[in-house]
Amino acid sequence: MANRYDFTITPRDVDFSRRATLVSLCDYILESAGKDADALGFGLRNLIREHAAWVLSRMAVEIRRYPDQYECFYIETWVESVEKLHTVRNFIVRDAEDRVLAEACTYWSVIDIRDRRVKDLTGFPKYLECVTGEALSIKPVRVRPVRPEPAGMHRVAYTDIDFNGHANTTRYIGWMLDTLPLEEFKEKTIDRLDINFMRESMFGAVVNIACERKEETLVFSLTRENTALCNAMIRLKPNL
Amino acid sequence: MANRYDFTITPRDVDFSRRATLVSLCDYILESAGKDADALGFGLRNLIREHAAWVLSRMAVEIRRYPDQYECFYIETWVESVEKLHTVRNFIVRDAEDRVLAEACTYWSVIDIRDRRVKDLTGFPKYLECVTGEALSIKPVRVRPVRPEPAGMHRVAYTDIDFNGHANTTRYIGWMLDTLPLEEFKEKTIDRLDINFMRESMFGAVVNIACERKEETLVFSLTRENTALCNAMIRLKPNL
Repeated sequence: MANRYDFTITPRDVDFSRRATLVSLCDYILESAGKDADALGFGLRNLIREHAAWVLSRMAVEIRRYPDQYECFYIETWVESVEKLHTVRNFIVRDAEDRVLAEACTYWSVIDIRDRRVKDLTGFPKYLECVTGEALSIKPVRVRPVRPEPAGMHRVAYTDIDFNGHANTTRYIGWMLDTLPLEEFKEKTIDRLDINFMRESMFGAVVNIACERKEETLVFSLTRENTALCNAMIRLKPNL
Repeated sequence: MANRYDFTITPRDVDFSRRATLVSLCDYILESAGKDADALGFGLRNLIREHAAWVLSRMAVEIRRYPDQYECFYIETWVESVEKLHTVRNFIVRDAEDRVLAEACTYWSVIDIRDRRVKDLTGFPKYLECVTGEALSIKPVRVRPVRPEPAGMHRVAYTDIDFNGHANTTRYIGWMLDTLPLEEFKEKTIDRLDINFMRESMFGAVVNIACERKEETLVFSLTRENTALCNAMIRLKPNL
């Protein structure tokens, strides 16, 4: 029941190493989710008619290899399960020789955009038909907030704002990475991300970014005033 | 002699209006330039063997309509002329019904990456064969620097750095747009950009962004300490 979506890494997807960044890999994963939801009849354009929208609450990605510039790859994605308040969607990213590049697991809710309340997903019988029950070993963990030294701040601006009118999901990942020195990316590779989204960020919001290092894991907490926006954990693996 | 490159606007290319941003449109224009240079045998992977690289010095874009999310479009591009120190490459962006969405004109040089000196383009006989002589009415103007109130600053970080190891061209456009209030984008549409690049920006550089408004035109000057990096002019048209 998994559907397949094909992509190619473009020059703007890569960093100095000419391999895809974590941000662009997550962009493609979320793009495949959007396309697949649309193919199943539950895309944003379907939901909008019922004043509803998808909201991503958690995501975990494990990366074995980042694809290179101009490399063709594909993403298989499917709905694992549906509960009242959230649904689980999985992903396997594969290269042209079908080798696994990455695996990802995401938790989504549907909200009513008029009152921002979560809708009961079991009330969509057609969506229940999409459930495959097929799980991956990867599951997004709950990341506990940290309150160490601030690592940076970001004021949400025009290029952060997406079609939902709030800061785009993958921007949060970029803001976190942008607090790190370049050596971190030269000497190490991110092999796992866990991210939890609590609140959205609108234009002009000042986002404070705190970071705590625990051996090869970085834990980030993003807050606005005293409101938690997002917590995330990034695991780094030293390059051989 | 124009070659055609096909693209589709993805969710991450659009702003709150669900139309492509100026940044993403310029990303596609530059991607088509890269692909076409490669097809002609003068792509980055060819030049790197001679320790050379393309450098964009000027760009002008006039936009009639920004394509919508998921809209398919294509870009025709060709080399207009070659002189000792620069070559002119033109672009016409068209929608699926062949209507013009945008036109663009770019000036490029080839530098030796060891000493950063400009190479004589007339010394590449195979490149001279690509010249079509076909001009567009649009030509990038020289933008004079402004020194008014600072509009913002940006520290060059990981996600800004591209495969060349410096801040990506279209990031400069994003930094400028990000100094503007959201109303500017709700009430008006950018219908022309002229941008001149003087110096590259490396990781950690603090870029100061100054802006002066002359009626419906915004003139931006980007500097690092007292070094001019980039000047640009953005023309806004009130929405009907």
